[in-house]
Amino acid sequence: MTVKDTAAWLQERDHFLLLTHVRPDGDTIGSAAALCRALRALGKEAYLLENDGLTSTYAPYAEGLWAPEGYVPQYVVSVDIAVRNLFTEAAQPYRDRVDLAIDHHGSHEFFAAETCLEAESAACGEIVYAIIRELLPLTAEIALPLYVAISTDCGGFQYGNTTPRTHRIAAELMELVDVTEVNKALFRTKSRVRLAMEAWMVAHMELYDQNRVVVMQIPLALRREMQATEADIEELSALPVQVEGADCGITLRELREGVVKISVRTGPRVNASAVCAQLGGGGHKGAAGATVEGSLEQVKAAVLAAVEQVTQ
Amino acid sequence: MTVKDTAAWLQERDHFLLLTHVRPDGDTIGSAAALCRALRALGKEAYLLENDGLTSTYAPYAEGLWAPEGYVPQYVVSVDIAVRNLFTEAAQPYRDRVDLAIDHHGSHEFFAAETCLEAESAACGEIVYAIIRELLPLTAEIALPLYVAISTDCGGFQYGNTTPRTHRIAAELMELVDVTEVNKALFRTKSRVRLAMEAWMVAHMELYDQNRVVVMQIPLALRREMQATEADIEELSALPVQVEGADCGITLRELREGVVKISVRTGPRVNASAVCAQLGGGGHKGAAGATVEGSLEQVKAAVLAAVEQVTQ
Repeated sequence: MTVKDTAAWLQERDHFLLLTHVRPDGDTIGSAAALCRALRALGKEAYLLENDGLTSTYAPYAEGLWAPEGYVPQYVVSVDIAVRNLFTEAAQPYRDRVDLAIDHHGSHEFFAAETCLEAESAACGEIVYAIIRELLPLTAEIALPLYVAISTDCGGFQYGNTTPRTHRIAAELMELVDVTEVNKALFRTKSRVRLAMEAWMVAHMELYDQNRVVVMQIPLALRREMQATEADIEELSALPVQVEGADCGITLRELREGVVKISVRTGPRVNASAVCAQLGGGGHKGAAGATVEGSLEQVKAAVLAAVEQVTQ
Repeated sequence: MTVKDTAAWLQERDHFLLLTHVRPDGDTIGSAAALCRALRALGKEAYLLENDGLTSTYAPYAEGLWAPEGYVPQYVVSVDIAVRNLFTEAAQPYRDRVDLAIDHHGSHEFFAAETCLEAESAACGEIVYAIIRELLPLTAEIALPLYVAISTDCGGFQYGNTTPRTHRIAAELMELVDVTEVNKALFRTKSRVRLAMEAWMVAHMELYDQNRVVVMQIPLALRREMQATEADIEELSALPVQVEGADCGITLRELREGVVKISVRTGPRVNASAVCAQLGGGGHKGAAGATVEGSLEQVKAAVLAAVEQVTQ
């Protein structure tokens, strides 16, 4: 469906439940929160389904929007979810009954009855912005979560997915809401634990392929030792590709014994989505992920092999 | 002079020399380079005066624009220079003969015959953008240094000085030139030396006033031991205020034995410009600096006393 069709589809319906993805980021939470507020402003009933991975970073933007226990929705809408693998535990009952998926991932697996997909959007928030603009005038309370969604998914307007449209939307949102504190909180605040984790990761990084490939690790033992929360390690996957000379940054995070979350961030030479597809994951050309069984050493070998194969 | 007046003033004249400030940043180099290219596109003679503090980070944007030895300008224009203290060694002969100053610092000391000052601009590059727009259509070669000027001075659109106008200008510039590589180089690339310096600074940081004031230091000995270049330590002053809970980040950098450069970055509670004014420096409310004689310990005591006095 186009943005216009999607707006009309939402306009005609009521009693929505909005789904966000596991390990929720700013885009999934911000997009869902903005859409939820917009639907409510239209007089409709709308809630976000609980997400137990929510961190303190994004929790403020979804306050008051969580579905009460026992809420029975008429329509289920997924926001920023590329594949059913990324459904939360709580969303499992809706695996086969998503009515509408709104997403911007090229690797989107069409699991919903209707889909509004714009893979060229920097953030799902850009699509939700366009949908909401069809429905009603923006307000500060809608602009804030939209700004969070869009600014976080384009790395604060610094990633390659940022487009002129991204900046123009940001300008419009900033006219409705002061984002100074949000920018400080999202982009220029690091807990002391996080700073210590970064220092550890840098001190233990490994370089491959003429220093173009940088691997950093977050062992479970380190997290426990530093008593790091989810918020402390959020977005640490942006770090490895920042090392001068690198155009393929890999973060290996031990989720639990024998399960490793891979995050790959790349420049034009390496297709991150293709690398992660080899390991059962997906995402965008410049940023993708996968969750793989094995030890850190085993998973590192597997992802390095995948990089080699993809860049050949 | 207004932007319109300044454009007319430039239009009527020829044979320009453009001055940039000591320890040149993206805004002074980018703004001067863009203005130089625009003046040349109008068929005029224009050069940048050499700046021996130029780092490899910004050198590419001013290539081919440096004044040849013995160049005798008719008009001298300073770009992004707030006070004469910030003139380079090479600019000393022009101390009392600057014809036009283009600047965005509230602490601007009116040293030029004519001044185009817009203190509400996030970057001097925004003013230069507006001036150039009065003179000729933007081209890719003008858009690139303008993007560098604007994006660096607003911390990649993440600092509090960023306005809707900043985003709108960025959108327009991005339509003329691909900024992917520039963003990667400016905002998401750190040398290994820089990463090691950051780790050292974090490990040795000091917290004051309920952790709201964070002091980090860059001793001369550390720079020498790590063989750090100017480029390695550029913008390290953005680090202290990022520590969670801090709203006043102070970086003390030993320039040479007995001389310390202070950089202060602050939230709304602390006026950085007022703090630095007490120490003979200046800048903006949220970002200011000063160069002070004394040991690191002495200067630290002085700046902490200034913060206390200003926040009382």
